[in-house]
Amino acid sequence: MKMKNTLIIGASGQIGKQLTKLMLNDGQKVSALVRDKSKLSDIKDENLSIVEEDLTNDFSHALTDCTNVVFAAGSGGGTGAEKTLLIDLWSACKAADYAKAHKIKHFVMVSSIGADAPDEGPQEMQPYLIAKHMADEHLMRSGLHYSIIRPGALTDDEATGRFTSQRPENDDDAKITRADVAHALMYCVNNPPHENSVTELFNGDKKIAEAF
Amino acid sequence: MKMKNTLIIGASGQIGKQLTKLMLNDGQKVSALVRDKSKLSDIKDENLSIVEEDLTNDFSHALTDCTNVVFAAGSGGGTGAEKTLLIDLWSACKAADYAKAHKIKHFVMVSSIGADAPDEGPQEMQPYLIAKHMADEHLMRSGLHYSIIRPGALTDDEATGRFTSQRPENDDDAKITRADVAHALMYCVNNPPHENSVTELFNGDKKIAEAF
Repeated sequence: MKMKNTLIIGASGQIGKQLTKLMLNDGQKVSALVRDKSKLSDIKDENLSIVEEDLTNDFSHALTDCTNVVFAAGSGGGTGAEKTLLIDLWSACKAADYAKAHKIKHFVMVSSIGADAPDEGPQEMQPYLIAKHMADEHLMRSGLHYSIIRPGALTDDEATGRFTSQRPENDDDAKITRADVAHALMYCVNNPPHENSVTELFNGDKKIAEAF
Repeated sequence: MKMKNTLIIGASGQIGKQLTKLMLNDGQKVSALVRDKSKLSDIKDENLSIVEEDLTNDFSHALTDCTNVVFAAGSGGGTGAEKTLLIDLWSACKAADYAKAHKIKHFVMVSSIGADAPDEGPQEMQPYLIAKHMADEHLMRSGLHYSIIRPGALTDDEATGRFTSQRPENDDDAKITRADVAHALMYCVNNPPHENSVTELFNGDKKIAEAF
């Protein structure tokens, strides 16, 4: 049986790097898939292995010896719809296909609030939400054991440690810190739900175990 | 039982308009879904009904009383990846969902050579091929009776009436006129294959019935 080893795709990203640090601090093995390994040069840990690869290439080799996958990559806000198609959609689909081939036990997807209904989102967000919707749909149909997390609007504030999966009544409250998302992802990796799940997540008033 | 009535989505496009004319000349009922009906103002036919709607809106009403659907819409080459996501991917997925809800008998999708393997396509084509791939995948999993046509590089030459579904050995020969694609689509609507099918199509040396 393989030892638990979590592949974090997009491990130098704004959420991915915080998740990488949290899991290493927790004593867990992490494989970090990044395009530029210098972005992790400040992390030294014997449990960290880095795979340097562009997500537009074949990155199936990154899944070797991994038991879990977290897809935390994102093209980022300013890169345009072409990268949205290549990274947010296509790389996510490839990750699910590779995970299936590698018999990954649990696939955790960082999705987005609104990915369930792109037409109802703000117009400027629709291309991104379509990409996330289709990537989520591909994962749901993959046969993998999956957890899809759909955080609200992301902020750079400090972790609060308090969550809710209920959409706040006021849209302005439908937000969550990236630090809290990273904590929630680690919780989800460490406590995989028995059932496949899609969970919206916001800062709220519950501990993470109660929010899920 | 509904009378045969084919909805052509993208009926003012370079292929869609030729298909619309062919089917009307053949005495068939056509519902033409277009964003701007003035683009069909040169066609007068009692069997033509025009539905004016933007594909980024809900266009399910266009399928009322239709028995068949041809998705021939495309964002076009110069519109950028955002429109590729909104039209080539999302509108195609919505069309399949609406078709399922309206119990459409046969859904014909104009896809593209290379949509089976976007990673192997030319780099500048990959975002488009990813969108077409995912739209095709959505249709294949819809439960609809479908025919997916994947033409080679499109040209504006005159119809040849000669086809092949075998990829030419020389990539430069992997092309087909839009006029011939329109003929092939009408053939496919009039002669729906018993099995769901994905067919690459090029100009060649066979009649359409033999090529399919």
